[in-house]
Amino acid sequence: MSALPPGSVIGILGGGQLGRMIALAAARLGFDCHVYCPEPDSPAFRVAARHTVAAYDDAEALAAFAEAVDVVTYEFENVPAETAALLAARRPLFPDARALAITQDRIAEKTFLREAGVDVAPFAAVDTEAELDAAIAVTGLPAILKTRRFGYDGKGQAKVASRVEAAEALARLGQGCILEGLVPFALEVSAIVVRGAAGGTAVYDIGENRHANHILDETIVPAPVAAATAAAARDLGVAIADHLGYVGVLGVEIFVVRDGAGERLLVNELAPRVHNSGHWTEDGAVTSQFENHVRAIAGWPLGSVTRHGTVTMKNLIGDAAADYAAIVADPDARLHLYGKREARPGRKMGHLNRVVRPG
Amino acid sequence: MSALPPGSVIGILGGGQLGRMIALAAARLGFDCHVYCPEPDSPAFRVAARHTVAAYDDAEALAAFAEAVDVVTYEFENVPAETAALLAARRPLFPDARALAITQDRIAEKTFLREAGVDVAPFAAVDTEAELDAAIAVTGLPAILKTRRFGYDGKGQAKVASRVEAAEALARLGQGCILEGLVPFALEVSAIVVRGAAGGTAVYDIGENRHANHILDETIVPAPVAAATAAAARDLGVAIADHLGYVGVLGVEIFVVRDGAGERLLVNELAPRVHNSGHWTEDGAVTSQFENHVRAIAGWPLGSVTRHGTVTMKNLIGDAAADYAAIVADPDARLHLYGKREARPGRKMGHLNRVVRPG
Repeated sequence: MSALPPGSVIGILGGGQLGRMIALAAARLGFDCHVYCPEPDSPAFRVAARHTVAAYDDAEALAAFAEAVDVVTYEFENVPAETAALLAARRPLFPDARALAITQDRIAEKTFLREAGVDVAPFAAVDTEAELDAAIAVTGLPAILKTRRFGYDGKGQAKVASRVEAAEALARLGQGCILEGLVPFALEVSAIVVRGAAGGTAVYDIGENRHANHILDETIVPAPVAAATAAAARDLGVAIADHLGYVGVLGVEIFVVRDGAGERLLVNELAPRVHNSGHWTEDGAVTSQFENHVRAIAGWPLGSVTRHGTVTMKNLIGDAAADYAAIVADPDARLHLYGKREARPGRKMGHLNRVVRPG
Repeated sequence: MSALPPGSVIGILGGGQLGRMIALAAARLGFDCHVYCPEPDSPAFRVAARHTVAAYDDAEALAAFAEAVDVVTYEFENVPAETAALLAARRPLFPDARALAITQDRIAEKTFLREAGVDVAPFAAVDTEAELDAAIAVTGLPAILKTRRFGYDGKGQAKVASRVEAAEALARLGQGCILEGLVPFALEVSAIVVRGAAGGTAVYDIGENRHANHILDETIVPAPVAAATAAAARDLGVAIADHLGYVGVLGVEIFVVRDGAGERLLVNELAPRVHNSGHWTEDGAVTSQFENHVRAIAGWPLGSVTRHGTVTMKNLIGDAAADYAAIVADPDARLHLYGKREARPGRKMGHLNRVVRPG
């Protein structure tokens, strides 16, 4: 693909905060955006030149959307394979259908990673109770049973300490599952990688992710790990993006395990999109993950990922965003709100970046 | 006015790059924007939740616009007085009608400044040729004859070296004029001030403005002036905003004159809006002028104006924006394009910020 000139139209599937922040970054570079989302009044619609309200399996609406844009991207990994194929037949789709297929299925993802030489927790596919014993033999107990598809924020998974618990969880989850060995990790970190359609890869400094109620609560950059560990995590992110022939921003969640031998890394999960743990880049790096995602899918050179200081990103979940007045009373607090009409428990309403600069 | 909660609607008169950048900043804080502009396909429309295409004297459209928003601001100082009055009767208008009235008329502006104790060049109103001799007695020659209203980027003005030239220029400009003494300034600087509806004033570090073809070409921050001069320019900006009871961002263009006594300041012009010479703040300060304008008119506390380093802002005028590919090949170049469909000579198409951080 040749580079898209300013004035080109970026098509975005999904109208939530990630699509909104991609659209805001695209506008700054002179692109127009067209957002496609089934929900009327989606936050991203309100910052985009055009929008389409239609279902993700509406072939006619998808075709018209593709005809109206110059490149297609998305804010969520559960884009149906048929949707991706329909769009990719008409316009460049980044990240591509293969990246989607691999990251939509925990078995495909872990198999891909293992074949790429990346360490992951022991795992086994489990579709029926009859397969449980063999799976437990691979993973040991306790383990985590997860749905292969559509899990997020701790949904669609259960920690199981016995075969009986595993069988109960399998019946409850009610679809193809994966049993994963429990990793005794010291902390979780993220590598936010960007790889351009025009070539070139960049990776932001590694941050630590802290969760509350199974939802990302804070990302702290730099992560409190050894320099060699941070470098290894960055290299791991780049290697995975290269191995996938990936285009766009890729979020790589990594467990850091500490034992007698020091720190080692196991990849937990890939997200083929801009990632919550990269929101710190909006205020804490020269180029945000959103702008770099746009540059990557437009075939532009990537922007600098240099970090400005020590950064803390705090998610504002549910009622937390109602405290906006107290937050902005601190002139250095960088508030980002997503334009969601209603705060519900567990709903990401915004985030807050704090940057402490050196010197 | 009490503070506007997120989800409130910011009404913006004018759909060019300034309105667009205000809208982008407002979206980040969770506000919706409604842009009003006579030109269809205005750049700001494409990043706003709603827009109205109507003339600035369309009372019906203006009333409907006011009803649909929570506060009104604008991107240009030539908002007609009747328009301002109509809007201000329905919703808070920031900056207010008085700030508009003063800054729309060079005589009113200079009179206001002089009464506020601010130094300005000698000036006199000139409506007819009969008034020229008295005016020249005030200003000396050479001098600059300018239209009292609607001048910008060197348009509507002429340098005159004699009474004959002044008479010719007066006949050509064809409306009420002002004759201003020529100031032998060493450089022009800007104070970008923001004053909140909720109280509080902040002023960014002083930048030097360099012009080409009477259009701003570059702003360099910090300006190469003595520390005491920079401090005096900041104080001047704050004093003017306070004296006006101003709300929003105010651009203050200041001449720095160097003579045996050192550096002294004369105010050239006020702009009651976000200002081109403040575009460096998007990448070079904690809070951009656009976000601080939104915070000010929404009654929020102001954000930090701390600068990140040495910043150069370069305007991309006419064909210059066609070089975008060469520009972004430098990963540290911060490109901003305005989404204008057509590059015309003298048209501002975008700008480029470069920040050199200390250390």
